[in-house]
Amino acid sequence: MNSFVLDPTLQRDTHFICEMSLSTVLLMDDARFPWLIVVPRVVGARDLIDLDEAHRIVLWREVARASEALRTLCTPHKLNVAALGNVVEQLHVHVIARFRDDAAWPRPVWGTGTAQPYAEAILAGVLGLHRAEFARANAPTPTWPHGGSDSGAG
Amino acid sequence: MNSFVLDPTLQRDTHFICEMSLSTVLLMDDARFPWLIVVPRVVGARDLIDLDEAHRIVLWREVARASEALRTLCTPHKLNVAALGNVVEQLHVHVIARFRDDAAWPRPVWGTGTAQPYAEAILAGVLGLHRAEFARANAPTPTWPHGGSDSGAG
Repeated sequence: MNSFVLDPTLQRDTHFICEMSLSTVLLMDDARFPWLIVVPRVVGARDLIDLDEAHRIVLWREVARASEALRTLCTPHKLNVAALGNVVEQLHVHVIARFRDDAAWPRPVWGTGTAQPYAEAILAGVLGLHRAEFARANAPTPTWPHGGSDSGAG
Repeated sequence: MNSFVLDPTLQRDTHFICEMSLSTVLLMDDARFPWLIVVPRVVGARDLIDLDEAHRIVLWREVARASEALRTLCTPHKLNVAALGNVVEQLHVHVIARFRDDAAWPRPVWGTGTAQPYAEAILAGVLGLHRAEFARANAPTPTWPHGGSDSGAG
């Protein structure tokens, strides 16, 4: 009981990348922007301040890891990090790599045009690149506790 | 030398509320939304991952404090927390109280209509309420180090 279930809209609009200690990392299915969503597996959390401080510290460490993955993979001009949740209430943090020639610059990405789903032919490759980057980034961390598959909300 | 200077656009578009250990808290001059901006006084920081982890932990604690102040003052339906920085590059975190009948709901606030500056007659009162709330929230914290006026980047 009380087990965490990913919001169905997030499930529908994203592809699974990997699990970290507290959070699940998803790729937004919009090829216009390199766009990760970090979802802490904490039942019932809506706002960041719904998390206790220990969870918050882990979440921000995992958001930083997602940011570093995007920075490594695509060298963006800027990173956008946001917890909005006006439409999908389940707490989730957007981490988006932005470029001065992207489809929304300099505006935020939300509400700009229409999502362009990844072509089937490249999706597996994109997911593979991200998974390899998270695995690489996690490998040398001696304090990584459970091989990345522990649920913080178990 | 190397002393922190607030970005001129942030200076122009906001009113000063208070300083916390690391960050300066500003009120966005847009009466449509209760909207705080938390600016860590770290010279040269653009992205969250430009901060070291110790600074990041303090920043997120201060963002949480700003979120709690807004929750106490105006009981929003949702809080939006975001570090975008596409226009103003100096690292700053938006903390915005959102309501289901506000001028942008459910869209993000950026790029929606035109800012409505606070009327002179109420601005002092609004700033006073926020300052009192931050002072109240800080008062019982025994580990608050310097009475809230220390510059983390001094």
